[in-house]
Order: sequence, then structure tokens, then C-alpha cells
Amino acid sequence: MIERPYLIFLGDVPDKLAAKTAYGVVDWSREWCVGQLRLPGCQADTGLKDMTIAEAAEAGARTLIIGAVNPGGVLPEHWTSTIVEAIESGMDIASGLHVRLASVDAIREAAERKGVKLHDTRHADRRFATGKGTKRPGKRLLTVGTDCSVGKKYAALAIDRELNGRGVDSTFCATGQTGVMISGRGVAIDAVVADFISGAAEWLSPATEPDHWQIIEGQGSLFHPSFAGVSLGLLHGAQPDVFVVCHEPTRTKMRNVEAPISTIEAVIEETMRLGRLTNPAIAPLGISINTQALSEEDAKACLAEAEERYGLPACDPIRTGVANLVDRLLKEFVA
Amino acid sequence: MIERPYLIFLGDVPDKLAAKTAYGVVDWSREWCVGQLRLPGCQADTGLKDMTIAEAAEAGARTLIIGAVNPGGVLPEHWTSTIVEAIESGMDIASGLHVRLASVDAIREAAERKGVKLHDTRHADRRFATGKGTKRPGKRLLTVGTDCSVGKKYAALAIDRELNGRGVDSTFCATGQTGVMISGRGVAIDAVVADFISGAAEWLSPATEPDHWQIIEGQGSLFHPSFAGVSLGLLHGAQPDVFVVCHEPTRTKMRNVEAPISTIEAVIEETMRLGRLTNPAIAPLGISINTQALSEEDAKACLAEAEERYGLPACDPIRTGVANLVDRLLKEFVA
Repeated sequence: MIERPYLIFLGDVPDKLAAKTAYGVVDWSREWCVGQLRLPGCQADTGLKDMTIAEAAEAGARTLIIGAVNPGGVLPEHWTSTIVEAIESGMDIASGLHVRLASVDAIREAAERKGVKLHDTRHADRRFATGKGTKRPGKRLLTVGTDCSVGKKYAALAIDRELNGRGVDSTFCATGQTGVMISGRGVAIDAVVADFISGAAEWLSPATEPDHWQIIEGQGSLFHPSFAGVSLGLLHGAQPDVFVVCHEPTRTKMRNVEAPISTIEAVIEETMRLGRLTNPAIAPLGISINTQALSEEDAKACLAEAEERYGLPACDPIRTGVANLVDRLLKEFVA
Repeated sequence: MIERPYLIFLGDVPDKLAAKTAYGVVDWSREWCVGQLRLPGCQADTGLKDMTIAEAAEAGARTLIIGAVNPGGVLPEHWTSTIVEAIESGMDIASGLHVRLASVDAIREAAERKGVKLHDTRHADRRFATGKGTKRPGKRLLTVGTDCSVGKKYAALAIDRELNGRGVDSTFCATGQTGVMISGRGVAIDAVVADFISGAAEWLSPATEPDHWQIIEGQGSLFHPSFAGVSLGLLHGAQPDVFVVCHEPTRTKMRNVEAPISTIEAVIEETMRLGRLTNPAIAPLGISINTQALSEEDAKACLAEAEERYGLPACDPIRTGVANLVDRLLKEFVA
């Protein structure tokens, strides 16, 4: 559990993409953010009020969120003094970088001295049990994908928000480092020891009230040669009642590997086939398409074609919202 | 790489089952074992010559293998002095227990002082890349199963030995802690961080000569709700040309969960379907059945029925040997 409110630290990232985590948190949990802190040269701006550590502490910030990502997952050395200053003022630190915060001596020592927490959301240090596979009470939705990075997190967050807006009891369950920061809890499922993937998914979405919906962020793809094992373990542990297939229509090959992108149809079939092991009633709810690269007209045509082809509601969480998916959820999957 | 020869340490285990690792190593790598060391009260006996640490050191032992397993994976405190004595005499230590050897102060300190290696074969501390999924040179066989603990390791070891006996160039690739001790190398694939399962499998069975066979020990089952993710990641990373389905005919439900055992037929189908992602030419080679619980007559009938039903050679690696599987391999899968 990450304490809020947050101060969002952007460092001196060279562009918006390098602050992906920050934008995710601000897009979905702006109410938890008191402000942003940028170093000279920073080329990203989330629109939050710029603050110093002292101002943010004064405004009640409990955690400094490191909102930057970079290929190596490293922490630039010249960010250390700012992080230490946040610790000195009593803030916890949360990072989704690969490097552990405590591996930097100055940060570890300051945290020990001040008794604050260091959250490495990319790591999963908690111990899990192995998966049981037995059906547990409550309702579950899992977002799955034709590839990595096709909008599984955004779709899940949007559905959770739409359900809450309609007075339906639901919880977003984060399975990646950014999702953990957005929701303040969860587990980076791909960082769990392989034996415990489905056990971690069971821990993440435990038995609950029969009519409570857990909206679980998917990871990878059953057809991605690097990560299908993670996707399958998550599917088995999540034992979803329904799933939403996420897709990016302009992509032709999988991210970072020489494999063709899979089809929505294949993902529906395979998710049903494999998901039945722990939930025989598993069913597709709808399709979520990231149409960002398309014109308004092309996006509409793309969504209409998907609806026609698969007989399921299709949406873009950003462009159209997820009302049609939630309409169907409430009509067909809520008693 | 674990240095040999080995001294096998049995401690004071209460029965043969509690020394499963020791028996595995002695069954398959007896030529690497100079002797066994048993404490008073030990109820297991691998048949090796009993030796003290001093005698074993004199005989050239390079590594003390802790041959015991126990449910908690703990190291009994009264074994520490023997382990430290082995270290003092210059031996490395290898353990498949869950607890890390270095977590015991006396062991860590002795190892640092003497500069010997501590191998925790249940842990995978090496860093891996994520899987690439691209086809690499060499031939690969993977054993898969209808459940955990159905003989995947024994089948792979027996096939590797048979191939070597016939002059075919092959290597056994261990994916579990006992396999690592038997072969002196490998990785406990279920201890790898989830993101790197298939990457670790690719590391384990790298590009090799085109006619070299890597015989890869399988793990879990595509139908086991706790471990299917591991099995799938291993399948994708191993990209096998052929697979052998392992089965235990008297079992009715999966180990440790409330799930029915899957059928050989379902495993063949699913392995083909999912394995094609990284090797479109994947094919079943044969069936390996653990008939230990059956009479000679019933075992024969069981194997004959499987051959009839699936049109594939069936064997029990212990009772009948794997000659018929290797016959087919050489006839149909070697150019």
C-alpha cells in the first residue's frame, strides 16, 4: 500500500514518453497528486502545479513518486539529492525502475534514518503461495491482449471507473508497476517467481462479496513468445468470469520480437480454451481498441467492423469511453 | 556448473523418500559419486560407500551434495557442523533446499574463509534476457506431462543416455534442482522471475550444432492450475522439435489441487497448439508412462493400449527402457 497524496517527480526526462508512469498516475489518480517536481531541462509536464519538496511536504505529500521510465531501468545519479531531500522531509519513495532504491547508499541510509518506506513496484518481494485453482466468490474481469502495450491497463481502469460511476462495487487490481502506483496497491506479476504467478494473481484478487467486481489488469499476450507464460498464469489465477480483448490495429508485429501480431479472434478462442481450466463459465465481454493512430472516421469504422465481426461491443477507452462494455456487463453478467 | 566428484550427504533422513535428491543423483550419475555420508539414525541408503568428510576429501570429492528434501525446505541445525567440516576440507556445497546455504551464518562464514562455492540449485540468481522466440540451430526434445511428478526428468535422462549409448550427440538440460545436481548444470526454471521463463529456457538450450539433440526436462503441466504458466514459458523457450508425454496412470487428480488429471490426448493437442508459436514443426515423439504401481501384466497392457490409441511408441523408462522412443526419433526426426 503506497501512502497518498503523492508528489510526482519527473526529473529531467527528455520527453513525455520517458515520463509514462507520471502521466499514468496523473491521468487516473489526479486527486491523489499535490503537485509535480521537475529538474532544470525537463521536457515533460503533467499539468500539475510545480512544487519544491518543501512546498509539497507543506501541502501534505506522503510519497514521492518517481514518474520516469528508461530502457535500462536505472536511476540517474543526479536525481539522488532530490530523493534524499524528500526522505529528509518524511516522504516515502515509490519507483517503478528496475534498480532498487535501497541499492543507492545515500537513499538507503536516509530511509533507515528517517524510517520511511521505499517501494520498488517493479519488484515483488512479498512471499506468495502457489495457485490453488479452486473457484472463489466474487466476480472478475480480466483484460487480455493481442500483444504487450495495447491498452490493457487503461481499459481496466476505465471499466473500473465506469462501474464505480454507476454505483457498482468494483476494484481495480494492478499487475504492473504503473498500475500499482495509480491504485496504490497490487503486484508486478511479471516480477514474481515463476512458480507463484497464478498464486500471486489469486492473492491479488481474493475471495470477495458475490456481487463485487474485481477488474484485473492483464499482462502480455498468450501469443507473445517472451511472456505467454505470465499471461497464462495470470489467466488461471484471475479465473475471470469475463474478459476484454485489447488491440492496437496499426501494429503488424509483436513488440521486441520477430512474431506476427495475433488476431482478436485467436485471442478470444485461446483465452476461452485455456481460461476454462479455472473458470468453466469464462466468456468474452467486448473489445477495446487503441485507435490513437487513426482518424476519427477510421476509428469509428474500425470499431464498427470489430462489433460486426465478433458480435461484441467494441470501444476505445480514451476516444469513446467504455459505456457499451459496461452496459453489456450489467445486462448479461450481473444477476 | 557444480564441480565433481560428489560426496552425497543424507543427514539423518527418516526414510528413502526424504532423500529423493540423493537417489536421483546416484541413479543417474553414480560415476560422479565417491561415497555417501550418513548421520546416526539415517534411514536411507543409496548403496554408495559410507565415508567421513576426511575420507571423501582424500578420495577427491569436490562438492558435498545435500541429498535430502523436506516439505519446509529447511536445513536441520544439527547438519551445520558436517557442512562446515566439508567446507573446511575445501569442498563446495550444493543444496536443493528452499533455504539458502548462505543464510546460515556458520556456513556463510566458513565458505567466505575457504573461498568455496555454495550452490543453491532451487534458486536462480543468474540474470536472464527475455525470450526471443526466434528459431535457433540444433534439435530439441522436451518432456511434458499430464501432471507434476509423472517422470519427466527420468524420461529425459533415459532418452539422453540411450542417445549417447548409440553414439548420437546429445545433452540433458536440467530445469529442476535435482536435475541440476544430476547433470552438474541447468536452471530451476520455476525459480526464475516470471518475465524471464522463456528467456531462461532459451539460455538453457542455446543454439548448437544442427544435428545435436538437447533433451530438456519438462516442468508441471499445461493443465495444472498452479504451474501452467511455467510449463508454457518453458515450451515456448525450448521450442522443441519433438515432445514426449509423461503420465502416471493410477492418478485421478492433480497433485496438491482439486483438479482432475488431464488426458494424454489433451496434452498432445495442447502442446502442439501452443508449441507451434515458436516451432511450427513441433510433433509428438512418444509416450512415457510411470507404471511402477502396476503389475508386469497390467503395465504391458497399459503401454500396449497407449500405443494403439495414440499411434505412438509408449514406454516406461525404468521398466522397459526408452529404446522404442529413440528408434522412432532416429528414424523419423534425424535426416
